Order: sequence, then C-alpha cells, then structure tokens
Amino acid sequence: MNDIQDKKSFSHKPCYYKLDLEDVVKKIKKIGAKKVGLQFPDGLLRRSTDIEDYIENETKSLVLISGNSCFGACDLDMNLLNEVDLLFHFGHSKIFDVKRVEYVEARMKCDFDDLLRDSLTFIHAKKISLVSTVQHIGDLKRIKSFYEENGIVCIIGRGDSRITYEGQVLGCNFSSAKNDGEEIVYIGSGYFHPIGIGIATKKRVLKVDPISKEIEEVKTERLIRRRYGVISKAMDARSVGILVSSKIGQKRSDIALKLYKDALKRGYEAYILYMDTIYPEGIGIKVDLLVNTACPRIAIDDYKRFKVPILTPIEFEMLLGGRSMNEYIMDEIR
Amino acid sequence: MNDIQDKKSFSHKPCYYKLDLEDVVKKIKKIGAKKVGLQFPDGLLRRSTDIEDYIENETKSLVLISGNSCFGACDLDMNLLNEVDLLFHFGHSKIFDVKRVEYVEARMKCDFDDLLRDSLTFIHAKKISLVSTVQHIGDLKRIKSFYEENGIVCIIGRGDSRITYEGQVLGCNFSSAKNDGEEIVYIGSGYFHPIGIGIATKKRVLKVDPISKEIEEVKTERLIRRRYGVISKAMDARSVGILVSSKIGQKRSDIALKLYKDALKRGYEAYILYMDTIYPEGIGIKVDLLVNTACPRIAIDDYKRFKVPILTPIEFEMLLGGRSMNEYIMDEIR
Repeated sequence: MNDIQDKKSFSHKPCYYKLDLEDVVKKIKKIGAKKVGLQFPDGLLRRSTDIEDYIENETKSLVLISGNSCFGACDLDMNLLNEVDLLFHFGHSKIFDVKRVEYVEARMKCDFDDLLRDSLTFIHAKKISLVSTVQHIGDLKRIKSFYEENGIVCIIGRGDSRITYEGQVLGCNFSSAKNDGEEIVYIGSGYFHPIGIGIATKKRVLKVDPISKEIEEVKTERLIRRRYGVISKAMDARSVGILVSSKIGQKRSDIALKLYKDALKRGYEAYILYMDTIYPEGIGIKVDLLVNTACPRIAIDDYKRFKVPILTPIEFEMLLGGRSMNEYIMDEIR
Repeated sequence: MNDIQDKKSFSHKPCYYKLDLEDVVKKIKKIGAKKVGLQFPDGLLRRSTDIEDYIENETKSLVLISGNSCFGACDLDMNLLNEVDLLFHFGHSKIFDVKRVEYVEARMKCDFDDLLRDSLTFIHAKKISLVSTVQHIGDLKRIKSFYEENGIVCIIGRGDSRITYEGQVLGCNFSSAKNDGEEIVYIGSGYFHPIGIGIATKKRVLKVDPISKEIEEVKTERLIRRRYGVISKAMDARSVGILVSSKIGQKRSDIALKLYKDALKRGYEAYILYMDTIYPEGIGIKVDLLVNTACPRIAIDDYKRFKVPILTPIEFEMLLGGRSMNEYIMDEIR
C-alpha cells in the first residue's frame, strides 16, 4: 500500500515512492478528525483513490480529495483546508507552518549504487556540493559517505528559510547549492533544477539521475540564450500585464506592485492581473507582454504556450534598464 | 467609454453593452478606496484594460484585475476580494450580498422593434410568460406593453431568492418562468437558457434573439435524448467521482455528501473531488463516472470534453434508482 512503483523505471531496477500512510492514519485518529482533505501533486493524483480507500477504511473519516492542480508546497489548497479538520499535503516538504496542514513527503527508494560508482569518473573537483530534491534527500548522507571514501569532500549546504532539509533544492530556490563546493552534484531527474543550479551558482553541474540511471553534465547556455531571445522579443512591447498568483507560497504582491510602478514610469500601459493558477488559456486581457511574479517555472518552462513574451521579474528589470543585461540571474523565491 | 459594441452584431443594427462606469468611480470615491478589484466575464475581459485605464485615471486608486475565469455572479473572486477595498463584479446581477462587493450589470442596448412585430405571428397563446437574462431585462416592461397592445397577456414572473429581477432567468435557475403563462417567450441569445426553460416548464418556448434578430421555437427533445444517452453510458460504472466546487455560489456540499453516501450504499467506489474551477483537464483521479454538483451547465454543455460520462445530481439519482427515469428534470440551484 505504501509503495508506489514509478512507471518511468520499468526498464531498470524499479524505484518506489514511500508514503507513510500509517502516520497519516495515526494523525487522523489522534485528533479524531471527522473530515480530512488530501492534496496531491498531479503525478500522484492517479493513485489518490487507492490512498483515499485506505485512509477511509482505517479511520472512517470523510475524505475529500483536492482536484486542483498542485506543483509544490507553495500551493496549499486553502479552500479545501476550510472544509476539513486536517489537510494532508502529499509529495512535498513543508515550506510554511500552517495550522491543520500535515505534509506527507514522497520519498523515492531507488537502487543506484552502480550509478554512483560510475559518477566518480565524471567528477573533476576535490570538493563538491551535493544537492537533491525531497524525493532523494534521504540518500544524501549515504552518497556523501561514498564520495568521501573515494577522496571527494562533500558539502551538503544549509539553504534559506524556505528549505526544509540540508542539500534540498526547489524549482524556485537554489540557496542550498550556494557554497564553496567547486562543482555541484545534483541527485535527481529533470532539467529545470540542475540548469537553475548552474545559472544560480555559475559552476559545473553534474546530474546523477537515480531513476533513468544516467549521468550528465548539464549545460546552461541554451536556456540563457533562449531567455535573452524572449527578452529581445519583448523590447517593442507597449503594454504589460503583471501576473500575481493568489497561491499562499507564490504570491509576490510587493514585487508586482514595484514592477507595475516602474513600468508606468517607463511609459508602459501596465495592468496587474490577479489569478489563482496561472495558465496561458486563462489570460484574457490584451497586452503585448506578460511578467510572471508567481512560480518562477511558469515563464521558463511554459513560455511557448503563451501568446506574448512572458518574463520573470528579473528579466523585466533588465528590459526596463534597471538591471544589467550582462549577467543572467535566475528568478528565485527566497 | 461606457458603450461596448458587441462584435456578433456587425451585420445587423449594432447592439451595445451599457456599463455604468461613472457609478463605479462614484462608489470608489465615496469610500476613498485605495485598492480596487475588477472581475469580468470572459467575454468582457478583453475590454478590461480600457475599463482599468478609465477607473485608474478617474480615481487614482490601484486597480487589480481578476484573471480567473468567471461564468456568473455565483463565482465571486474571494481571493481578490481579500486584497482590495472594493471588488466590482461586472456583467452579472447580484446573487449574494457580500460586503465590499459591487455588481456592475452589463445591460445591452439593441434596437429590435421589427423583430418584436415579427414575433407576434409565432405566438400561439393568449397568455404568455416573458423571461430574459440580465442583459435584456430592462426591455421586458416595454415588450410586455407591446404584446399587451396586441392582445397577448404577459406574465413577468417573480423568481426565487437567487433571482434579482422579475422575469430574469439564470443558467441554473428557471424559477421565474414557472407560472401559468401558456407559452414562454425568451428574449435573449444562446440555447442553454431557452432549452432549460422548456425542460423545466414543459411548455412551448419561443426564443426572440435581439442580437441575431432571429425568432425560433426551441426544441428540448434532442437535449433530453442526449442526456439519457449519457445516463445509459454511465450504467456500467463501478467508481464515481463527485465533483464539488469551492466557488461561493456553486458549492453544494450537502448534495455531494448525500450522493456520495447513496453511491457507497449502492456498491460504488465513491470519491469526493473538491476543486475551484471544474474543467476536464483538471480531473486527475481515475473513475468511471463523474457527478457534477457545481454549475449545472458543466455536465450539459461540456460533457464531450470529459473522458468519462458526467451526470447532474438528478441524473445520478435516476441512475441509482432513487428517482423515476420517466421524467427528465433540469438541475437547478435554488
């Protein structure tokens, strides 16, 4: 029940998600919760019915599943929280201490010892910084020991207040990677995090992927070139829509207001657009340019889906002239 | 500034939306609002920047535009309301009295006297019920006078508490059409409202459309046949997801809970899915059947976009056997 096999790994030794559902049941029983909410990242939502069955069977409490999309702990379903005694937010580690919200992390169990051995030949430095996302965060100490046995000093950095675990990175926060490791080894999947780390630290980043069992030096140049391309397309814009999300961990009203005022001063027609989930089809107002103050990944990952150029706050400051164009800086939420 | 031409009517005498923006400015100045929110139906959102410019120029207050989709006064942007001193909800008439929310109705100005004259030959009864949506509600008294001058008695019915104006219908409420008029004349566009009226009253419905300048007797049989088709497709379902919206005027938790319990009793695997906007792409859980307790139009208008059959609460009661299949009944929010 607690192990969820990851479909991406059928061709390798399989990986499993570990979810501590016994602990969920214990927490429900402890306060005698009558109504319970469950919130899942999109990838776990297809498993939600099994998890609902288990919890309802064990506790007899009424379970409501959040059907809203959810991309991180920044995105707590506050409407659902209003309806229930306890809200279990699955998959992510805690960003905020919110009353009656419990975080149920999804830790992945993978066998990748061979991969670690292979990765030794790819590491060029004597001292590295070791980072990962929450799925693999439990493996970092073991990995550090292994590397240090092989003569590589490992730093597992303490991130800022948004970060739960040492060495943990979020898509919007790479603070734990910023230390005096000469290279960075990222344990995890995807490209957004390691590229973000590379841009944020300007250091060589090695991606060691426990799921695909691949090792890769991640290059940042293409993303940076692409972003300068979007900025240059935005240069003729006369009107700008500044996007603000109402999600608890993505709302950057202050930044939005500052950019709005700066835009007006520079002669733009400017508008503040306040949304829940920001998605291209939902942008009904007509403007030449969008600036996204919500999840930093929206402008970077989804820019092709928007009809007009979409910039991060930092990119918009570059466009306005208040910030140098020479150095590309990642948008982070700190 | 206050007249917005409707694009659908270029081939006829044009229709205009009248929005009382002077009154908006007056209300902002009266309480000295520093931050103001604007919420528009999707059709008006493309005009939102002009309206924002006007209000900001006249009042110097900071204006935030809601970018969330909005299909009725049932759908107030409560997150935006939390950010502002006053929220102006455009296009719809008031359903709820919510503090700091002001409704700005969009009244349409159309010249359709010739159409009314033509409609006389289509009316078969001596006593009719006259209904419309809020856009044309201001025309009903004039239309009543015209028909009565031509020997037709007109009833403009008082709807229930959800209805602001006599003779007004909503997509989820046809109460003002239920009276002893022998036929119903619907002044307005679209098919959902007049078909809903036809099913809710079982009377002949004549649609007189001031925008397209067309007169049509609206038939309900196709929709009813289609709905029985969806119900029959749902007969093999073993699992059901009951959809609840968190929107202030669409949340029917009690109905959802009742259906959930009934479904469990009848041996279904049942799940309650709690969402903000309900849209097909957002349904991540795997079930054989969906039941929609939010806006009644979702199941009827959008059913083809969902991967599995989607039923109204009443249709699901038919399926469960607690309600006769002989008479099709519209889902209304009363």
